[in-house]
Amino acid sequence: MWAAGAQQPRRAGLAMAAAAAAVLALAVAAWRRRRPPVREVLFFPSRPSCTEGLLAEAAGLGTTARPCPCPLPQGDGSLSRLLRHLLSARRSLEICLFAFSSPQLGRAVQLLHRRGVRVRVVTDAQYMGLPGSQIGLLRHAGIQVRHDQENGYMHHKFAVVDRRMLITGSLNWTTQAIQNNRENVLVVEDAEYVKPFLDEFERIWEEYNPINYRFFSKDNK
Amino acid sequence: MWAAGAQQPRRAGLAMAAAAAAVLALAVAAWRRRRPPVREVLFFPSRPSCTEGLLAEAAGLGTTARPCPCPLPQGDGSLSRLLRHLLSARRSLEICLFAFSSPQLGRAVQLLHRRGVRVRVVTDAQYMGLPGSQIGLLRHAGIQVRHDQENGYMHHKFAVVDRRMLITGSLNWTTQAIQNNRENVLVVEDAEYVKPFLDEFERIWEEYNPINYRFFSKDNK
Repeated sequence: MWAAGAQQPRRAGLAMAAAAAAVLALAVAAWRRRRPPVREVLFFPSRPSCTEGLLAEAAGLGTTARPCPCPLPQGDGSLSRLLRHLLSARRSLEICLFAFSSPQLGRAVQLLHRRGVRVRVVTDAQYMGLPGSQIGLLRHAGIQVRHDQENGYMHHKFAVVDRRMLITGSLNWTTQAIQNNRENVLVVEDAEYVKPFLDEFERIWEEYNPINYRFFSKDNK
Repeated sequence: MWAAGAQQPRRAGLAMAAAAAAVLALAVAAWRRRRPPVREVLFFPSRPSCTEGLLAEAAGLGTTARPCPCPLPQGDGSLSRLLRHLLSARRSLEICLFAFSSPQLGRAVQLLHRRGVRVRVVTDAQYMGLPGSQIGLLRHAGIQVRHDQENGYMHHKFAVVDRRMLITGSLNWTTQAIQNNRENVLVVEDAEYVKPFLDEFERIWEEYNPINYRFFSKDNK
């Protein structure tokens, strides 16, 4: 009687074991498929290469866009690698840059904004108005920008993509730096490095909130 | 007969097993004691603090040095942390810096040179002669310095300590940057990041070898 009655629980037990094994197999497969964290070092000056295809693809123009007629070679220079990492943003992008005048990087940031990515930019007050600066164009496109009002420079050169990827180094996002200077950029997905930079961004973002701007020196109150 | 004769090899075997176990125990203890790799992010401007004690200790003056009479607090600001990492060098120090005018960091580098650390410096030709630059003092002390002769800037801001620790970021080693700017410095001991920076240093070091300097433009030959 007991032995016969045990058939049902035994079948249920077997089914549960099979389901658990399937879930485990799926988890192992997903774990094996997972992308290893990005850990890349880029050096500049970058070998010049055409980035039009990359930007057209990111803008959704895909293969319908005509090939760029410029004489630059297609290829994966440091600028293209930087653009690719930037364009991988899906939700948020924090940018903290002393100088920003590269048209390609400016277009990428505008493109992400149009795609619905929450873009926030912090920059240096004394450099944001220089000829060629992208800051006015970003503001015109509706992107939030805040700047310092300190004596020192806001000299950081970093960005955080989707709160998971840190892009940082010596490189200001300018054509001069990309094409002519010796520069480095680290691209890392270690939370250990991403978190302090995100915290620094939030600190600066709050401190540079326009409600804190003083338009007159304290002596003039 | 066989059983009696086996006593000697058995004892030797036991002794060897005991020795192996002891070695293993020592290895495990050493492995447990090992220092985890440094992974630190420093932000500037640094809370001002006196670095005289730190530099006196590193110079071997130890506790015999009189306490510094300056009004700055003792403590561990970002500059002190940076100095400590730098002063941990025992064999080699590669420095690749756009601008170098901080007297404290200059003294630390000279101190390492006097201690027998092999110091090599790469810098930017247009910034090395500015007022307050440490480059002339380093050369005067016998430290090897090389500079670019390019149109672009040698804009890196990194150092490698004992081929194991990378110090890199937005910070030029200037008092202005340390005290007034928003800056970041990453200190990491991951070989994955250290190696490409060391390779970049060696590339630049060879390229800036004085035998390659041209003192006249090509048109003037």
